[in-house]
Amino acid sequence: MNKKVLVLPGDGIGKEVCDAALPALEALDLPIELIYGEIGWECWMRDGDPVPAATWQRIEQVDAILLGAITSKPKKQAEAELPPALQGQNHRYVSPVIQLRQRLGLFANVRPSFYLTGNGKPYRMSVIRENTEGLYAGYDYRGIPEAIRPLVKHPNLERYGADEASCTLRLQTRFGLERLFGFAFEHAVQHGFDRVTFADKPNVMRESGDFAQEIFEAVAARYPGIRADIQNVDAVALWLVTRPEQFGVIVAENMFGDILSDLAGGVMGGLGLAPSANYGEGVAYFEPVHGSAPGMVGKDKANPAAMFLSIAMLLEHLGFAREAARLQDAVRNAIRSGAHLTYDLGGSAGTRRFADEVLALLHGQ
Amino acid sequence: MNKKVLVLPGDGIGKEVCDAALPALEALDLPIELIYGEIGWECWMRDGDPVPAATWQRIEQVDAILLGAITSKPKKQAEAELPPALQGQNHRYVSPVIQLRQRLGLFANVRPSFYLTGNGKPYRMSVIRENTEGLYAGYDYRGIPEAIRPLVKHPNLERYGADEASCTLRLQTRFGLERLFGFAFEHAVQHGFDRVTFADKPNVMRESGDFAQEIFEAVAARYPGIRADIQNVDAVALWLVTRPEQFGVIVAENMFGDILSDLAGGVMGGLGLAPSANYGEGVAYFEPVHGSAPGMVGKDKANPAAMFLSIAMLLEHLGFAREAARLQDAVRNAIRSGAHLTYDLGGSAGTRRFADEVLALLHGQ
Ligand SMILES: CC(C)[C@H](C(=O)O)[C@@H](O)C(=O)O
Ligand SMILES: CC(C)[C@H](C(=O)O)[C@@H](O)C(=O)O
Repeated sequence: MNKKVLVLPGDGIGKEVCDAALPALEALDLPIELIYGEIGWECWMRDGDPVPAATWQRIEQVDAILLGAITSKPKKQAEAELPPALQGQNHRYVSPVIQLRQRLGLFANVRPSFYLTGNGKPYRMSVIRENTEGLYAGYDYRGIPEAIRPLVKHPNLERYGADEASCTLRLQTRFGLERLFGFAFEHAVQHGFDRVTFADKPNVMRESGDFAQEIFEAVAARYPGIRADIQNVDAVALWLVTRPEQFGVIVAENMFGDILSDLAGGVMGGLGLAPSANYGEGVAYFEPVHGSAPGMVGKDKANPAAMFLSIAMLLEHLGFAREAARLQDAVRNAIRSGAHLTYDLGGSAGTRRFADEVLALLHGQ
Repeated sequence: MNKKVLVLPGDGIGKEVCDAALPALEALDLPIELIYGEIGWECWMRDGDPVPAATWQRIEQVDAILLGAITSKPKKQAEAELPPALQGQNHRYVSPVIQLRQRLGLFANVRPSFYLTGNGKPYRMSVIRENTEGLYAGYDYRGIPEAIRPLVKHPNLERYGADEASCTLRLQTRFGLERLFGFAFEHAVQHGFDRVTFADKPNVMRESGDFAQEIFEAVAARYPGIRADIQNVDAVALWLVTRPEQFGVIVAENMFGDILSDLAGGVMGGLGLAPSANYGEGVAYFEPVHGSAPGMVGKDKANPAAMFLSIAMLLEHLGFAREAARLQDAVRNAIRSGAHLTYDLGGSAGTRRFADEVLALLHGQ
């Protein structure tokens, strides 16, 4: 039976990289049916909701989602930009990717980073980022909420008082951490990594650090063949730059994982290359780590490599591991050959030219 | 009149890099008197306090502090390692650097990163990290405190309840942000940077992002000659790897700044090179960003460059700008010549051999 994939090109260069990379599915001759849907900024400006009801309905009917890119703006700005007709109707802007992750229970954001460009030493690793709690749990306040005031006696509050402050709760739960760590070790087993590093900050956030450590160690004990360690997140950031080859899986709280995975994308050669996958309870979605890059739109400048590699992750998830590997090889070879690189990699080829190179390599395999 | 500097070599390689680099003060023939004091792990194991009262007293008498390195362990581990005679006396371990920053009101942690090794493009920037609040404010809990349970209704809490969770408050105050941003723009003016970038996450932490943005913009308005922008912290992490030359000053909350500054140290060529300064109300302290590296002790392996560069920052602070520049030049030339690099930079020279090279260059200037 055909697998169904919902394609949500989204904003800006999202559409361009979808158009350029999706022909890979044909080249690989796969029994996949594509369905299209809407998401993002245009939906927000038209309906006051960046994820339309029709898109949620289609999500129910598919085996995986492929997302292009999303324009994400700070809430105040997004709400101020709503057209006059939609103002005052209490439309609240919530980033569509966060909506997807939360509503679909996609708790594990996998962001692989590996040697592609020919600079530096070969390495291969994955950042696995918690996707539903931590600093992203949604408890962010201007002013210290009444309930919290008795707890907070910080000298910096003396001058202006508790209204002239902000406060964010970083929430971590046993439920969230157990499933995250379980996922990370399973990912390591399945992808042949021999080390899982939890990037945290236990020497400063001691209570939450102790709590997470206990859970991490309990899960690690079930995987005696895998080296498990806890490192300070700042040190991990540094080592990712200087010695990425030492890592296998790096697992982290939502905000730490957001930073480390972008960083790992930089080490890989930039966001033009970095793919990602979001797994969990509901249907998984796959997307390049890059944004919608409004300044690049229509210039045939975007690098479709991250989208090709996100499609490869999607194929692996749908059970087409061999085709996933073929696609990854084609991208790697197109980059190594260096003949038609996009401008982010120092070349002058357009989006389509590079994509054609990948497709030609696929056909020639 | 002589300036007084308190030298706190601290733990591990801290002593080694102090010994190797402090002769620079003699070579520069400066009217500086050195006083020595104790800090760190040995003090903790002896007295149950990593910053002895005698050290606090000496701090009162000096113009600046030079710190070597500190062994910082998670609280539980540190307290478990206390000798039996000190157990049960309610000794609470608090990292000595955090004690210094908080008690001396050293709110601005300056971590410069610049082109030294000859790899990549020339660049020069400073990360300025808030040092007294944010996620480091000290509100970290195992379990959700009773007072704030009514606020927290997260689905991840359903399975195991509010005791099987942890919670950390990220506190930011108008007082803290105003002085931080003011410091960052002044630093830009004094060091010839034309851009100040606030690395935050306003598209996710919207209320605190709005709050900080207002304060940042109000301060920026006083510096019309400097380009001021707010960027997502994840994007800043990526760009630091791929295009550090675009930045001038990056200013950030405590935890974000901790990560970004270690990362910037990696971009510089590793922690063997990265210096730092902590400024604020009380006496400023200067230290290499690296830790005490217990595994390296006694092997003549530590790179003293970060300590030389920290001394250069200290000299600038004490009003010896010309000598600071001379010392920086000597370090840069010793690294560029490549003849006696330490092993972190791919060489085989010992701590002292590299230091001697720097001292010889100083004498020869
Ligand atoms: C757009 C934004 C909300 C998102 C995030 O922070 O998770 C993005 O940076 C990402 O990493 O997918
Ligand atoms: C030792 C630790 C508490 C400290 C910090 O996190 O501030 C260190 O990482 C630093 O950056 O100076």
